[in-house]
Amino acid sequence: MSQYWTEIVHQLDPYVPGEQPQDQQYVKLNTNENPYPPSPKVMAAINEYDKGLLKLYPDPDSKKLSAALAQYFDVEVDNIFIGNGSDEVLAHCFQAFLKQSKPLLFPEISYSFYPVYCGLYQINYQTIPLKTDFTIDIDDFSQKNGGIILPNPNAPTSLLLGLEEIEKLCQSTSAVVIIDEAYIDFGGTSAIPLTKKYDNLLVVQTFSKSRSLAGLRLGYAIGHPDLIEGLTRIKNSFNSYPIDSLAQTAALASLNDETYFQQRCAQIIQTRDRLCAKLSDLEFKVCDSSANFVFAEHRTEPAAQLYQALKQAGVLVRYFNKPGIDNFLRITVGTESEIDSLIAKLRDLLP
Amino acid sequence: MSQYWTEIVHQLDPYVPGEQPQDQQYVKLNTNENPYPPSPKVMAAINEYDKGLLKLYPDPDSKKLSAALAQYFDVEVDNIFIGNGSDEVLAHCFQAFLKQSKPLLFPEISYSFYPVYCGLYQINYQTIPLKTDFTIDIDDFSQKNGGIILPNPNAPTSLLLGLEEIEKLCQSTSAVVIIDEAYIDFGGTSAIPLTKKYDNLLVVQTFSKSRSLAGLRLGYAIGHPDLIEGLTRIKNSFNSYPIDSLAQTAALASLNDETYFQQRCAQIIQTRDRLCAKLSDLEFKVCDSSANFVFAEHRTEPAAQLYQALKQAGVLVRYFNKPGIDNFLRITVGTESEIDSLIAKLRDLLP
Repeated sequence: MSQYWTEIVHQLDPYVPGEQPQDQQYVKLNTNENPYPPSPKVMAAINEYDKGLLKLYPDPDSKKLSAALAQYFDVEVDNIFIGNGSDEVLAHCFQAFLKQSKPLLFPEISYSFYPVYCGLYQINYQTIPLKTDFTIDIDDFSQKNGGIILPNPNAPTSLLLGLEEIEKLCQSTSAVVIIDEAYIDFGGTSAIPLTKKYDNLLVVQTFSKSRSLAGLRLGYAIGHPDLIEGLTRIKNSFNSYPIDSLAQTAALASLNDETYFQQRCAQIIQTRDRLCAKLSDLEFKVCDSSANFVFAEHRTEPAAQLYQALKQAGVLVRYFNKPGIDNFLRITVGTESEIDSLIAKLRDLLP
Repeated sequence: MSQYWTEIVHQLDPYVPGEQPQDQQYVKLNTNENPYPPSPKVMAAINEYDKGLLKLYPDPDSKKLSAALAQYFDVEVDNIFIGNGSDEVLAHCFQAFLKQSKPLLFPEISYSFYPVYCGLYQINYQTIPLKTDFTIDIDDFSQKNGGIILPNPNAPTSLLLGLEEIEKLCQSTSAVVIIDEAYIDFGGTSAIPLTKKYDNLLVVQTFSKSRSLAGLRLGYAIGHPDLIEGLTRIKNSFNSYPIDSLAQTAALASLNDETYFQQRCAQIIQTRDRLCAKLSDLEFKVCDSSANFVFAEHRTEPAAQLYQALKQAGVLVRYFNKPGIDNFLRITVGTESEIDSLIAKLRDLLP
């Protein structure tokens, strides 16, 4: 509390990210990071980059990276907006499109940063309840709204919506629909091609998960040039140079190694399937995941206790003390051996 | 223009950064970059960093870097806020402290991003005219205000205020005073020690200029823990992980090479003095610079034409087409040989 804060600062209820312990070595399955390093091409690109050039400002428009993303996704450069992680891209989206007289809609169980952005920008919102199995009924979004945002696959439930449902959403509203595809590469189908058909559709993706670059902060949005221009106007009123030169270089290299990308995604999907089977054996109910994490509830043991016991045993998973999901654990799909450690610890802990 | 934009996006008048040409080789004296590369320790730190770790999110609190900055400036860790370039830090400052019922005050000629932030956050502001020689009279800020912000040295004038004047400012208002010290290392004295005396004083600095790290995007604010907490609340409602792992690593290495830092600053000051003398010889009136740039007006030739002619001759300088300064050029202090090129071109161009 301070007399110097603006009214908004007093009201904020900031987002709390998953723990990033800097000291102890954990089996870290709590923040949906990729267990594999980025492509060797990324490492080479950073090593080969002339660090003397860091004296210069980065390209404020990330032109080379935009061009590479445009080619990769078969869209135009003016369909691309790049930000300092998809969290920054989302923040700009909330400010650029979602503060409207009618309420913003998003699922009641969803990325917990959405209500935080609403607090920051004073956006009126309404959450849409999920069904008891956590599935989303698109028809529930058929009410007056000033925008719709949802992650697909949803977080932390890991459940996927099909493209026909995304299309229905786009048709159902005259406002902007934002699909937050942070986890789409682990089994889903991206709605990016639909942005050519629906000028109110914006798709947000990130280099953090499937491309193992959480440490470099790169996200992007793809949609109609008018939407991209809205984001660019916000960005150029906030920070002209959000993406540093090494991040631009590394991201470009990552896009140029499709084989590595596909192999790592396939490996994570395979490990996920094994993890789900093992958890079922241990009497967990596991949601049908299309992400690099699973969302699971034990039939008898409370999640809060399991979270604490696992932490003490050196395994970090994510626990949300929130109504409706407070008996679930969100477990990131690690390497095969990390998953083996988790399962072994659970075997010890469970009755 | 788009039906999907919020009201605020329509109203924005975004900042226009200096040109960052990606194609032609210019003698680039237009964006106040350091002409020297970052410390060899920075380069080594980036090369030695285990790029496999980029799969992990960065430390959201930049704890090691905060601790190093705290030690460097003889303050505590809770006096430090770190952001993605000082532009991001400033943006958060405007949202955290400067939207008040009374108007924000800043100099009429100043960093042109300030009115842009005011547009973004709908902040009521009033500009304070400078004297005809561009000096700031602190007494002119003695009016009802909801905050004061100014760069010291001022940009683009390059003129410095002394610490006794900064103290007067802090005493003159019950609101926050922000001193934007992007250029302080080129001859000024930082107000950071005054933050221990005045809990309404916040000092903002950057790694972009004196530490040759514009390409990595690092800025910070130093002040009372309550002010830092206000910034942190905004940051954690906007983007939890704004500073990537390589930037944290590089900045830390830069702080650990004081000798290099001091040598480069001294070299730039020496070159600046030579540049000023040469410009005077060529019939420019040059402001008394405490920055890594000079602000100069030719006695006969219009600045707009000189800017264009220099650009055609391969030398980029900054020209602001704004009332009061539209006959001035802002020229970054480059290397000795870059300054020689500039002077040679000017000799050719001038009558």
